[in-house]
Amino acid sequence: MAIIVQKYGGTSVANVDRIRSVAARVKTHWQRGDKMVVVVSARSGVTNELIGRARALSPFPDEREMDMLLAVGEQETIALLSMALHALGVPACSRTGAQAGIRTDAIHTRARIANVTGGDIAERLAEGKVVIVAGFQGVTENNEITTLGRGGSDLTAIAVAAAIKADLCQIYTDVDGVYTADPRVVLNARKLPEIAYDEMLELASSGSKVMQSRSVEFAQKYNVPFEVRSSFNNQPGTLVKANATSMEDAVVSGAALDRSQTRVTVADIPDNAAAVAGIFDALGEAGLSVDMIIKNLGTSGRANLTFSVNTDQYEQTERVVGAVLRRLGSGTVRSAGQVAKLSVVGVGMISHPGVAGTLFGALASVGVNCDLITTSEIKIAVAIDPTKADAALRAVHDAFNMGTTTP
Amino acid sequence: MAIIVQKYGGTSVANVDRIRSVAARVKTHWQRGDKMVVVVSARSGVTNELIGRARALSPFPDEREMDMLLAVGEQETIALLSMALHALGVPACSRTGAQAGIRTDAIHTRARIANVTGGDIAERLAEGKVVIVAGFQGVTENNEITTLGRGGSDLTAIAVAAAIKADLCQIYTDVDGVYTADPRVVLNARKLPEIAYDEMLELASSGSKVMQSRSVEFAQKYNVPFEVRSSFNNQPGTLVKANATSMEDAVVSGAALDRSQTRVTVADIPDNAAAVAGIFDALGEAGLSVDMIIKNLGTSGRANLTFSVNTDQYEQTERVVGAVLRRLGSGTVRSAGQVAKLSVVGVGMISHPGVAGTLFGALASVGVNCDLITTSEIKIAVAIDPTKADAALRAVHDAFNMGTTTP
Repeated sequence: MAIIVQKYGGTSVANVDRIRSVAARVKTHWQRGDKMVVVVSARSGVTNELIGRARALSPFPDEREMDMLLAVGEQETIALLSMALHALGVPACSRTGAQAGIRTDAIHTRARIANVTGGDIAERLAEGKVVIVAGFQGVTENNEITTLGRGGSDLTAIAVAAAIKADLCQIYTDVDGVYTADPRVVLNARKLPEIAYDEMLELASSGSKVMQSRSVEFAQKYNVPFEVRSSFNNQPGTLVKANATSMEDAVVSGAALDRSQTRVTVADIPDNAAAVAGIFDALGEAGLSVDMIIKNLGTSGRANLTFSVNTDQYEQTERVVGAVLRRLGSGTVRSAGQVAKLSVVGVGMISHPGVAGTLFGALASVGVNCDLITTSEIKIAVAIDPTKADAALRAVHDAFNMGTTTP
Repeated sequence: MAIIVQKYGGTSVANVDRIRSVAARVKTHWQRGDKMVVVVSARSGVTNELIGRARALSPFPDEREMDMLLAVGEQETIALLSMALHALGVPACSRTGAQAGIRTDAIHTRARIANVTGGDIAERLAEGKVVIVAGFQGVTENNEITTLGRGGSDLTAIAVAAAIKADLCQIYTDVDGVYTADPRVVLNARKLPEIAYDEMLELASSGSKVMQSRSVEFAQKYNVPFEVRSSFNNQPGTLVKANATSMEDAVVSGAALDRSQTRVTVADIPDNAAAVAGIFDALGEAGLSVDMIIKNLGTSGRANLTFSVNTDQYEQTERVVGAVLRRLGSGTVRSAGQVAKLSVVGVGMISHPGVAGTLFGALASVGVNCDLITTSEIKIAVAIDPTKADAALRAVHDAFNMGTTTP
């Protein structure tokens, strides 16, 4: 008998039939005597419909009202899943974010969790009830409804698991788990049975779409082990935890591609620390993340900077940097085209020499060049030509023996 | 400058365009300096869609979860209307039933209002904001979401108007106001500029579909004058208030038809008060309203009862009466067919002799007979052949000179 928090995303509860399947899966655990909390998202499509109506009324809808509107999606799902469990003879009750005591700050549409009381979840579990909690939403101390932004339902699940000291948190999604690389690109990619929080974080920030970083960070901070698995089959998924012991002999756990990066060149700026700091401070204040920075000297005491940003943040980056350059009185900013970022991640990396050598060897074997490079204790990332990204990923995956023997 | 509560039903906020029209109407008042509270229903169709999904999962969905589900409909509308007002430059904020302090008992799906605090509505109005309140929903002292049942949004509007001491409550609906008779049947029916609460109540319980009795009762109890008017034009509607003074010279204010009555015959019961009381007590306990009762003596000390019930309550009536008859050891219960109930209503009636004579004369002129008759101080109702109901209504309407001179 364990205390389990399960989270089901929008695809898993898209319609009445899928909600019924989720209820059946929850029932299996409940019958074994597990105490079950289930966190659900809005049915897929519902959030987009609501946003569509909002935008038809106002191009920039008020964020407080947006939260009031969007919270509707999860509230529908919790009630329907509760009914589906009743129909299977399982006692269940639904709780909105407010009722489950998900307290947040007042930054509407991207609120951060301040604390989770859990409301009366523990009492209802003690009565043998399944408790269904609305993901993605919370409430401020003034009883204003908030939403948590992208990946919010995962965050709800992990925060609730921390609050009620759950034995396990299961994130049901439309992928089977965390793979050594995207299986659509690398046919012999292998599902990892376990992965460390740090590795998962690096993969998340490297373009792996499995989960948002903030949920993994929260899990790491409160030491909540969680499993990423599919709601469409019964295969075990990937367990994400503090130390993935079975991985100790592996150097590299996974590789990821982020195809939506733009290389930015800032040319002809004064070659001093204040000028460079001014640019990166301004980008940081605007909430823009930059990666893979190179500075090189130009002519007559001027310097050039190159770095990469997410392509959808390029226009804002250009505006912010342009404003700094006008204050500096010199310099130009321009896009130097699209790049793909290829990352290899692994906690074993730091203690194994030769990782960089293997990586560059693999890239060379498929004719891929790179100049922008960034490293951390558990990651090396390189910017490469996007048209050669798939071939590069396969070559790197093979070079580190990450795949299964039979593709 | 007045404090005005407006209520818009589901048809008036059915889609983005209609929500925009409502916002424009609210803006007109706000620009005049009126302090505006707007109560809205779910967009028409939304509630039925939600109920459809619930019933697909469970033939008898849990009532608590049903309230959790249905409350979603109004929450969507308040956010959208608030955005529509913002787009017109009008400051506005939305409030759920809970946030507006609509406290109810815990009878889910048909909760009764215990009290209305109004939450922070007065403060927001003082800031010049329009406050949008979700109709139909409330919250128990344990923070459980409840819904108020049929006509719930009208009730919310009147209760909020009472709580904030509004000068006027306007109920916007898909009819123009209260007519002397159904204008689809009686072509020269006249819209009443004013009507007394008592008359409105009698009309509501006589088959007029304008409003549910409970909202009118609540308005009468707290002396909240309200106007029933159309959201599709700018015509004044009908003002419902304690004493409709302009009506003093009129004998009869209106006439209504209720076509869905069944005549019930209970034959061969003991002719004593206990037996009769036993039947009506049992019906009352089961929440079944009976009307137009006749008792007549049968043979050898036995009695017969005839009365009418709403047709959709006939089966339950038969069951309840049958159980009493088994305890009494005699008697039969059966339907004696469909009847229509024709009512004429007016506060002037009690002080004017000859009303009954005019009524029966009008019925006789179109060959309509009746035996079941019920009277109150302000109403006479008769059960008639449903196939002759329209003709009877027109004849009665003419006999009391209720119509306009030009149809």
